[in-house]
Amino acid sequence: MSNPISKKPTVGVIGLGTMGMGAAQSLLRAGFKVHACDVRAEVVQGFVNQGGIGCANPREIGELCDVVITLVVNAEQTDTVLFGATGAVQGMRAGSVVIASATVAPEYAENLAKRLAEKHILMLDAPVSGGGAKAAAGQMTMMTAGPPAVYAKIEDVLAGMAGKVYRLGSAHGLGSKVKIVNQLLAGVHIAAAAEAMALGLREGVDPQALFEVITHSAGNSWMFENRVPHILSGDYTPLSAVDIFVKDLGLVLDTARKSKFPLPLSAAAHQMYMMASTAGHGREDDAAVIKIFPGIELPAKTPGTPAPEKK
Amino acid sequence: MSNPISKKPTVGVIGLGTMGMGAAQSLLRAGFKVHACDVRAEVVQGFVNQGGIGCANPREIGELCDVVITLVVNAEQTDTVLFGATGAVQGMRAGSVVIASATVAPEYAENLAKRLAEKHILMLDAPVSGGGAKAAAGQMTMMTAGPPAVYAKIEDVLAGMAGKVYRLGSAHGLGSKVKIVNQLLAGVHIAAAAEAMALGLREGVDPQALFEVITHSAGNSWMFENRVPHILSGDYTPLSAVDIFVKDLGLVLDTARKSKFPLPLSAAAHQMYMMASTAGHGREDDAAVIKIFPGIELPAKTPGTPAPEKK
Repeated sequence: MSNPISKKPTVGVIGLGTMGMGAAQSLLRAGFKVHACDVRAEVVQGFVNQGGIGCANPREIGELCDVVITLVVNAEQTDTVLFGATGAVQGMRAGSVVIASATVAPEYAENLAKRLAEKHILMLDAPVSGGGAKAAAGQMTMMTAGPPAVYAKIEDVLAGMAGKVYRLGSAHGLGSKVKIVNQLLAGVHIAAAAEAMALGLREGVDPQALFEVITHSAGNSWMFENRVPHILSGDYTPLSAVDIFVKDLGLVLDTARKSKFPLPLSAAAHQMYMMASTAGHGREDDAAVIKIFPGIELPAKTPGTPAPEKK
Repeated sequence: MSNPISKKPTVGVIGLGTMGMGAAQSLLRAGFKVHACDVRAEVVQGFVNQGGIGCANPREIGELCDVVITLVVNAEQTDTVLFGATGAVQGMRAGSVVIASATVAPEYAENLAKRLAEKHILMLDAPVSGGGAKAAAGQMTMMTAGPPAVYAKIEDVLAGMAGKVYRLGSAHGLGSKVKIVNQLLAGVHIAAAAEAMALGLREGVDPQALFEVITHSAGNSWMFENRVPHILSGDYTPLSAVDIFVKDLGLVLDTARKSKFPLPLSAAAHQMYMMASTAGHGREDDAAVIKIFPGIELPAKTPGTPAPEKK
């Protein structure tokens, strides 16, 4: 197998959402030549204005880059941008690397590595976490798995985009498994934060005081602290939407169902997000899951409040 | 109403569990004359050896103290130590104060204040949080509610035992409501931590690596970080037992049911603790709720591991 990767590999980012844009900007700052594409032309143009190289489609990225990072929403989009008519794989050389960072079923990640191997393309199973602000600062977390040979080729790329790179084993899928467990907790904790604030409102507790006490008590969670301010300011501008957890808790449950493993809390939380989505809140911020609770009055939107920054 | 409280009130602690003992020791260090009683004579003797004054029963405490702190397990015990045949109320003078710190239904706290008022005894609704280590350091959190006149009488007592005293309003019950919401989150988060670790084990993820990643990711919670080490070391020595959450999530659900308010996650988590309790794990550490999951092998107890310190 040839090794087309020079000392400083050429990198490409497919998908300039919050995480993708953050990764692309961080890699630019780290001195890489960064190519990028996205279905939204204006977003690509924004990245070009910052010194990036815009590409028309994933195939162009594949032709030009040694390392291709897919930071799209799910498995379907990953498949399209890699194997579609204008997919990256059409252009990629033997020995180049795909860093697969969408949240996907572990089984999909395992199969993806095999499909890419048939084309002599290496893969890192590498879901990400941490939110947009951390991604923009080059400080996102990556939950990675793959053979040592892959890491050897992309160590400086990973260092350029992530603050913390967890190496979870050589078997593809282990990164996605850990990400799935993280999403289980994240999804349940947001739903629990909503349920707790709803009960407090129902009981006539001042919601601001309740937030203050809980964030200093054993009931706190990363998600409680991050999402409840959206409820308090009545601002459901989507930083991460309700429908993302309809999808991600769905993946969690699908993964467990394959081995008939019961997940009572995940199942209950998933139902809550589906209630919220079908009631019309699917594209609102995930904190809008609190809108499924009847008989309470939520804090109104504070006029002039800027949208909360995504952590 | 007479005011028998001198500049430095005489205080009594009823119930020398982890939190009660911590409060009593902290008050001693703060220079108070501290009386205490407990059903376990040897625990009282231990406190006497540290400079405290042991009492035979709550009535004796009531006779000798201006401020009586009830740090027992629940509403039933609170009723017994206050209104029983040898209860504190039998001895308490008009104008003295009860600081009621057990976790109880908000409605019980409201009624308790009324029943004590009939005896001309003041009350602070004051559940506590933070765990034994913080209590011992005088740094526990108190979620309090009551009329300003009550606070005026006991400010230095509260300062002597708590690091943070939240004042949630003048209406008794508001403190207990906030504590109930905290317990909702605490109970759901422990059950979610168990569910997440169980899925990780089922999927063959290294549990230690999973703990490391989650505690640095958005899926983290105070409880995940505090309780999962018990699972990893296979040590279910009860710091707080499964049966405490059978009780506390029961209180959460009872509170909500009074106004027909739905709590899907709390209900699911409550069922999980009841499964664990009925399977024989009720007196084990609450992290033992993970034992309800079939088809996984939990980490074995590490020989010689000291019991984890309660936070």
